[in-house]
Amino acid sequence: MPPITFEDERIAMHHGAGGRAARRLVEGLIVPAFSNGALNELGDAAVIDAGGVRLAFTTDTFVVRPLVFPGGCIGSLAVHGTLNDLAVSGADPLGITVAFVLEAGLATAVLRGQVVAMADAAAKAGVPIVAGDTKVVEHGAADGLYINTSGIGIVRDDAELSPTRVRPGDQVLLSGPIGDHGITIMLARGEVDLAAELASDSRSVLALTRALLDELGPGVRWMRDATRGGVATVLNELVAGREIGVLVEEPRVPVRDQVRGACELLGLDPLHVANEGQFVAVVEAGAGERALAALARVRGGEGAAIIGAVVGEHAGRVVGRTSFGARRVIDVLVGDPLPRIC
Amino acid sequence: MPPITFEDERIAMHHGAGGRAARRLVEGLIVPAFSNGALNELGDAAVIDAGGVRLAFTTDTFVVRPLVFPGGCIGSLAVHGTLNDLAVSGADPLGITVAFVLEAGLATAVLRGQVVAMADAAAKAGVPIVAGDTKVVEHGAADGLYINTSGIGIVRDDAELSPTRVRPGDQVLLSGPIGDHGITIMLARGEVDLAAELASDSRSVLALTRALLDELGPGVRWMRDATRGGVATVLNELVAGREIGVLVEEPRVPVRDQVRGACELLGLDPLHVANEGQFVAVVEAGAGERALAALARVRGGEGAAIIGAVVGEHAGRVVGRTSFGARRVIDVLVGDPLPRIC
Repeated sequence: MPPITFEDERIAMHHGAGGRAARRLVEGLIVPAFSNGALNELGDAAVIDAGGVRLAFTTDTFVVRPLVFPGGCIGSLAVHGTLNDLAVSGADPLGITVAFVLEAGLATAVLRGQVVAMADAAAKAGVPIVAGDTKVVEHGAADGLYINTSGIGIVRDDAELSPTRVRPGDQVLLSGPIGDHGITIMLARGEVDLAAELASDSRSVLALTRALLDELGPGVRWMRDATRGGVATVLNELVAGREIGVLVEEPRVPVRDQVRGACELLGLDPLHVANEGQFVAVVEAGAGERALAALARVRGGEGAAIIGAVVGEHAGRVVGRTSFGARRVIDVLVGDPLPRIC
Repeated sequence: MPPITFEDERIAMHHGAGGRAARRLVEGLIVPAFSNGALNELGDAAVIDAGGVRLAFTTDTFVVRPLVFPGGCIGSLAVHGTLNDLAVSGADPLGITVAFVLEAGLATAVLRGQVVAMADAAAKAGVPIVAGDTKVVEHGAADGLYINTSGIGIVRDDAELSPTRVRPGDQVLLSGPIGDHGITIMLARGEVDLAAELASDSRSVLALTRALLDELGPGVRWMRDATRGGVATVLNELVAGREIGVLVEEPRVPVRDQVRGACELLGLDPLHVANEGQFVAVVEAGAGERALAALARVRGGEGAAIIGAVVGEHAGRVVGRTSFGARRVIDVLVGDPLPRIC
């Protein structure tokens, strides 16, 4: 077993935030113990061989609060989240499982609403819910309900997605405006004295990733959905410890005015805020415009943008260039500004 | 969508106990919403077609308390539980995923102990942990940690397991003594003033189900692990609404003296107590002795027994016959004598 390097004495909220502390926990304690090839790649889904079929397999537990928020709810989020992990792995989903932890005393109407939302989200994506589990814990031993979804899918023959295929000159795409989910949740909790017309971007991105792969095939080199930790974190994970960097043209990053305004007030960088319906894709040099055109033909793909490029300089770093040409390092998320975001 | 028939206003502990109330919740609310062929079979794992490969796919969340108990812990239990769901589906496991919900303030040493136990259990069974997820909730919003494991495996070519293949004359096998897990947990909680040398039966049954299939192939008609709700509940689920019954020869059911004694004191039927390393198998008429011999050649299979037969009478019911020849109906578990058993 590789050495365990995680030395914090107790688990704290920031260990679940998707940023630096979360990475220390996962890489310093969990991965060393479970060490094997599929896990070590730390993709959104493991890809394993199943009798000659390339199978993507992924899991996520959802603990978001509140349970219902503008644009979505924990149930639809749980379905979208796992479908999106399969989608950015280049997989066609075969089925998902659902496991509930319910707090005793939970109103059945609440559970019913979530079950119906999950069924709707799965049906809309054309993916069956094939197995499930239900546990109940005492009142006070959970916060309403938590939902785990796991999913499997067959990786498309034309998908060759890997961080190792990414090289200087490749273009970096974003599927749409960022930060909607994180800011919506923050506002829904009433923790911030701010009113804004905003809804979570929670959605399945399956139609978008399919359009991209249909258009470019292996010309799509890598994709990740930008959930906890935001776009900054997934880009940093792409280049960490490698001889490449990413240069983000900051004015090109799509951010709604309401999100930008809220982030300024709260001292947050939109690139660190969680999304639940947006992904980052790296496509081969020169294929960016074709990629955008393919995405624009799909409902919900109109807001996609080329936000930067993979570069041979800035090794291991993500660097932003402002409209004035100034450069700054865009680091991973530190701390946890938005606990229980998904 | 089929009609939702679950009308309880709030979720209560017994809805998670694996007995009648749990079945009402699952069949009356969750399955109707998620309705599809794979889910409706309600097996331990869904079997789905993946590009010509028969794939078993299963999920379970573990909320057992205490986290550590004689014979096991939540981590090893979580690995064994999902491997056993695949095993009784006749599948060779390909990999499992692990998703944690951690309570802020949890000592890292506790998490580390569980992670190591999971790694050991998975390595011992020769199954890789391929993907994972970690969420942290506030102190007081979980009870230490909860673990979801999901698993996939390829169903063996010689496995033809289905409740619909079970017919009168078939023999009913039990892999070993029952009730050890449930009673051990109850004693570990100190809720009962009783001392007994007892340990959970938590283990992978993979070697046992493999031995059975190697020996009998399609002669094994159906298998289920007897967790929440115990042997009584899984046998009732096998015959419910069908023209067959099960006659259990009660003196042949293996139960340790300590478990029998504790059950008598507590007013429990050992057939209702949860197991985490035992399964029930139905084999074709006359194959019972061969099955026992095959199991006895595997370490941990020596305690297996033929406990009864499938019969054409007692339609839809499980009936026990005592040593005096008296018959009684063995019903599913009602209520929840042992909450958070797994």
